[in-house]
Amino acid sequence: MSLNSFGHVFRVTTWGESHGPALGAVVDGCPPGLPLSEADIQPWMDRRRPGQSRHTTQRRESDRVEILSGVFEGRTTGTPIQLLIRNEDQRSKDYAEIARSFRPGHADITYWLKYGIRDYRGGGRSSARETAARVAAGAVARVVLAHLAPGLTIRGAMVRMGRLEAAARDWAEVERNPFFCPDAEAAARWAAELDRLRKQGNSVGAVIELVAEGVPPGLGAPVYAKLDADLAAAMMSINAVKGVEIGAGMAAAALTGVENADEILPGPDGPRFAANHAGGILGGISTGQDIVLRFAVKPTSSILTPRRTIDVEGRPTEIVTRGRHDPCVGIRAVPVGEAMMACVLADHLLLDRAQTGGRRGRIG
Amino acid sequence: MSLNSFGHVFRVTTWGESHGPALGAVVDGCPPGLPLSEADIQPWMDRRRPGQSRHTTQRRESDRVEILSGVFEGRTTGTPIQLLIRNEDQRSKDYAEIARSFRPGHADITYWLKYGIRDYRGGGRSSARETAARVAAGAVARVVLAHLAPGLTIRGAMVRMGRLEAAARDWAEVERNPFFCPDAEAAARWAAELDRLRKQGNSVGAVIELVAEGVPPGLGAPVYAKLDADLAAAMMSINAVKGVEIGAGMAAAALTGVENADEILPGPDGPRFAANHAGGILGGISTGQDIVLRFAVKPTSSILTPRRTIDVEGRPTEIVTRGRHDPCVGIRAVPVGEAMMACVLADHLLLDRAQTGGRRGRIG
Amino acid sequence: MSLNSFGHVFRVTTWGESHGPALGAVVDGCPPGLPLSEADIQPWMDRRRPGQSRHTTQRRESDRVEILSGVFEGRTTGTPIQLLIRNEDQRSKDYAEIARSFRPGHADITYWLKYGIRDYRGGGRSSARETAARVAAGAVARVVLAHLAPGLTIRGAMVRMGRLEAAARDWAEVERNPFFCPDAEAAARWAAELDRLRKQGNSVGAVIELVAEGVPPGLGAPVYAKLDADLAAAMMSINAVKGVEIGAGMAAAALTGVENADEILPGPDGPRFAANHAGGILGGISTGQDIVLRFAVKPTSSILTPRRTIDVEGRPTEIVTRGRHDPCVGIRAVPVGEAMMACVLADHLLLDRAQTGGRRGRIG
Amino acid sequence: MSLNSFGHVFRVTTWGESHGPALGAVVDGCPPGLPLSEADIQPWMDRRRPGQSRHTTQRRESDRVEILSGVFEGRTTGTPIQLLIRNEDQRSKDYAEIARSFRPGHADITYWLKYGIRDYRGGGRSSARETAARVAAGAVARVVLAHLAPGLTIRGAMVRMGRLEAAARDWAEVERNPFFCPDAEAAARWAAELDRLRKQGNSVGAVIELVAEGVPPGLGAPVYAKLDADLAAAMMSINAVKGVEIGAGMAAAALTGVENADEILPGPDGPRFAANHAGGILGGISTGQDIVLRFAVKPTSSILTPRRTIDVEGRPTEIVTRGRHDPCVGIRAVPVGEAMMACVLADHLLLDRAQTGGRRGRIG
Repeated sequence: MSLNSFGHVFRVTTWGESHGPALGAVVDGCPPGLPLSEADIQPWMDRRRPGQSRHTTQRRESDRVEILSGVFEGRTTGTPIQLLIRNEDQRSKDYAEIARSFRPGHADITYWLKYGIRDYRGGGRSSARETAARVAAGAVARVVLAHLAPGLTIRGAMVRMGRLEAAARDWAEVERNPFFCPDAEAAARWAAELDRLRKQGNSVGAVIELVAEGVPPGLGAPVYAKLDADLAAAMMSINAVKGVEIGAGMAAAALTGVENADEILPGPDGPRFAANHAGGILGGISTGQDIVLRFAVKPTSSILTPRRTIDVEGRPTEIVTRGRHDPCVGIRAVPVGEAMMACVLADHLLLDRAQTGGRRGRIG
Repeated sequence: MSLNSFGHVFRVTTWGESHGPALGAVVDGCPPGLPLSEADIQPWMDRRRPGQSRHTTQRRESDRVEILSGVFEGRTTGTPIQLLIRNEDQRSKDYAEIARSFRPGHADITYWLKYGIRDYRGGGRSSARETAARVAAGAVARVVLAHLAPGLTIRGAMVRMGRLEAAARDWAEVERNPFFCPDAEAAARWAAELDRLRKQGNSVGAVIELVAEGVPPGLGAPVYAKLDADLAAAMMSINAVKGVEIGAGMAAAALTGVENADEILPGPDGPRFAANHAGGILGGISTGQDIVLRFAVKPTSSILTPRRTIDVEGRPTEIVTRGRHDPCVGIRAVPVGEAMMACVLADHLLLDRAQTGGRRGRIG
Repeated sequence: MSLNSFGHVFRVTTWGESHGPALGAVVDGCPPGLPLSEADIQPWMDRRRPGQSRHTTQRRESDRVEILSGVFEGRTTGTPIQLLIRNEDQRSKDYAEIARSFRPGHADITYWLKYGIRDYRGGGRSSARETAARVAAGAVARVVLAHLAPGLTIRGAMVRMGRLEAAARDWAEVERNPFFCPDAEAAARWAAELDRLRKQGNSVGAVIELVAEGVPPGLGAPVYAKLDADLAAAMMSINAVKGVEIGAGMAAAALTGVENADEILPGPDGPRFAANHAGGILGGISTGQDIVLRFAVKPTSSILTPRRTIDVEGRPTEIVTRGRHDPCVGIRAVPVGEAMMACVLADHLLLDRAQTGGRRGRIG
Repeated sequence: MSLNSFGHVFRVTTWGESHGPALGAVVDGCPPGLPLSEADIQPWMDRRRPGQSRHTTQRRESDRVEILSGVFEGRTTGTPIQLLIRNEDQRSKDYAEIARSFRPGHADITYWLKYGIRDYRGGGRSSARETAARVAAGAVARVVLAHLAPGLTIRGAMVRMGRLEAAARDWAEVERNPFFCPDAEAAARWAAELDRLRKQGNSVGAVIELVAEGVPPGLGAPVYAKLDADLAAAMMSINAVKGVEIGAGMAAAALTGVENADEILPGPDGPRFAANHAGGILGGISTGQDIVLRFAVKPTSSILTPRRTIDVEGRPTEIVTRGRHDPCVGIRAVPVGEAMMACVLADHLLLDRAQTGGRRGRIG
């Protein structure tokens, strides 16, 4: 049991608050001998980094990662890898006026109800800033994947912003717009819509889609260590996520068995599936098809539109959250979701190696 | 790490296959001194038991639970509670003709790819029969909840079958029809539709909704032991589940921040919320509102309509799954979902007691 | 966290009380495809079984193990293996007269202080009968070891009974006397001494030595998953154990660095060590030498000599424990210690495979 | 499963190497609202700090702890507490000449055999420098204990150095000599002896004794979460420890049941025990008596006397370890052992609170 760790054998523990001096992650159980340096991590941090367009928070953080342990002469040693990120631009004064009132839709009230602690500086541990540590850990997971499953790729995209959906799935486009949107036309509409909402002092939700290609079959387990159960927990643990679905997802409820059956055909390198309603996972174990996952992110709760609330004394009041917030926190959830998926897959590769040694039933 | 356990301090380990001699659950960490007998468990088993209407599998199992340990003179001792359920009606011969072919949408292919083992008798460990053990464990969790959070209730309903949704939420109706449907009119339509699908040799998906009332605020944690992350993993670990959502769920993506903010008002016993888009959980911690959760169950993969597949040698073939299967496995997922929610809530009550001793920030 | 489980990836959960209907173990994480039947387990059970000589308790238990899950057509499936052992000869009436008084040196008082439960029937969960489940699990661990580390052997012996030590280490002799004593002459003296003590209504302590040969180098980890830390916990978790030592053990305190350094020499298959003060483990990781471990078992607390105590009301009284007890519980601790060592080694083999894939630094 | 964490609900993860930039500990699960600052931690660090007498290593480290998270406005928040300690005096050049040869009795060879990594700079993760992080975590544990079990004290002493034992147990004396020796006369003899050994280029082992007074009864569990099993693992996880014993310990083997029975008498505040052979723990659960534990530390393996060894190529050679090493590593193991005991007791207090809520069977 650990409140701030996840993973079975590739185990990540994160620590740190939004407005403390630093935050980070300890990665335990990483295989030894893998090449790893800060340069392998930084590009992933930069994808998540705030302030890169007018559509994300203007907080300025370089999000530079220092590796404090677990790497020697450029290679992992097999011991814990401490990844430290300094907070640089914590302007707590923004929070002074909201120090005594709860923000509707925000964790500050439950934090208070549980701990009797009010870290009014910006959410404390419940701030999305914690996800920087996940991205750093995810970069280490990617190194493990590169080593153990060389062809495996993980890609994420924002496929819906509010009521506006992306129609296309053009992965090259994802890197060309500030929304990680796989549809150039949608991206243009989203820019206009988000400008409008931001000016209104409003915010908006989003759906993120993740696709992992080249995942070996056989990862996961039939019951509580199901690959999809671990993925669901990983995504739901990201701030503001309210739903997770695999393959056909919630829409699977509307299908009949005849429609849902992904028929199996003989293929050149093993089974080929006629469809992928299962999203690459059957009975908790990977099939070898693409793993397809979506999660929904609610709109940022910190908004400039006044909302009714109460203060710590229980008196009614109104609140406007100034600070610097993402009008659509879903944007920066893309690299975070990718990182969590990388951690889960690396963990399950190692876990499967423990139990089966990579043993596989052969077909044909 | 444990492949077949879940829970932090109220820890359940299940074991057993669909067609072995027995299956069961070990419940570890249960508080001592609670009244518990087989009679407390049986009613919940009976809710999930097959063969109670023409709409579920005709396999005949009495699902009688034997308590083999952890209870002395009618009270829990604080030591592991072994709950044993004999399999009585395992007709493996049904499976003879499909012993060498994989069922599209079924776990038998991933099972084979991972373990090199083919338990053709009925899914082995990946069979929904495993959920009987969860319901037994959930009954123990309910005893813990009755003791530690007396007003807490957990209720489940099937709110959608295929394309047909329940409009009403009449909890009394749930106990009156064979679908756990909270809408009498919908239930009647579902009966006709399911008869039609069954006669076609088809099956259908469903959405289950769970509501927990009277949950104390303060359960959960801000990051990886989020109450919703644990609930998501618990539900996704149930057979055939492809999506999980809390509160507004996937639809939260379409909301704006102004719409999504559950405004807070002073109430007679603490904060009162104007809405519950959050589904009772903010920042991973319970607010004291109703916890509202939905999950989607895909259609049963074992159908009588022929589907293309391959056999163990990789040769193309067709398959028809005779056996005795639920045409809508979502029906019996209702008591299973309730049981999992009971386990997660009992676990988090104990976990919170460990860390905070029930300490709470007071409002007002 | 689990109160009744041990192991990282080869994870054993035991359950059951001395005087309930049954007890057993669930083994989770076992590799698939290994040959396993009840016949592989029974010989180990028989070694620990009570009533095989006048020197152990006269309780009659056949200790027959039923495999209820996790094995199909003679091979492990990779799913949980439930090992069930029925209690057959639970004569609770023996305990009637001590039902209200605490036994000095026995767990009944702490059990009561913690749980407010008094399982006077024979120690409940704290009875040494629980160790039958460990031996069953250990038999499964041996199958894993036979598969992954074919040359590995684990042997145990009782090397001291009270003040009488075994001088020789004749492993063949261990199987020839009722004490698992590696010294025929000592065994004869022990028989006389134990007859004398038993007639006095007394009991006596013992030291058990375990030796594992053929352990691959590289098992363990530098800090909290040290191989010796896990072995120490495993042995200390056995009833009545009060001390554990590895290699030179407590006597290492009396050595100088010059004496203690196990000099390293080139050998035909890698390093050869001039001595083995380290007991086969350096820095928590196996060296490839024999792992040598000893643990001390206190005398049975249930004795026929009257001792002063108090009853549940706190009133002073005297107690004599009739029942059927081992005069030297150390004897039957030998197969239990061996089983625990097998579980720890199997677990670390799998754990090491997860992290390093069996990668090894080569010397020469 | 975690290679670098310990504890069930008060969970400590340490990270960092001897010669990297920093090391530290993350403490997860700490109750919220407890007063904590760096000033609460530093005194414990100073007790363990090297270079405070001629009898310990001359490495100069201020061992100043920075709290990077988990504390806000002087109180714990209930979120992870990151404790960072910079390495200041890492003179790796000392190690240049031993970079290719293995030190007899040292972990460098097993490290190499497992990971294929050679962190010749000073043991890497297997260096005793890691224990600084434990002492920092232990200081946090003491704050928890002060809150939950106000009268509880933990004290440690070195009671044997090589062949020389301390006869007295004068706790005041422990703070007056550089050996944490509870016997002034012994301390004087040890000083002379250690000077002699150091000049010889030799080192020596030690026995440490820990005593916890005021431990509430009821901590622990009957089987694998035994309080003594967790204490044994905690102590055995400290560098160079080769044996652990509770109460009568290894000597319990020599006792008879009549001698060993700690008779129970009515006392003013509950049961009073006539003796404490059990060392405060019966059946894995605390009795309320003093917990008494001893562990043996082997002599430092890094010595100036030449020893035969091999190099990475497997060629025979001789080695002399220059560097700066403790001639008796047992001295600084005293505060480390105390810290580990504090962590285990804090963890079990929280764990017991989870399961029993502090429920206790009353006597009288």
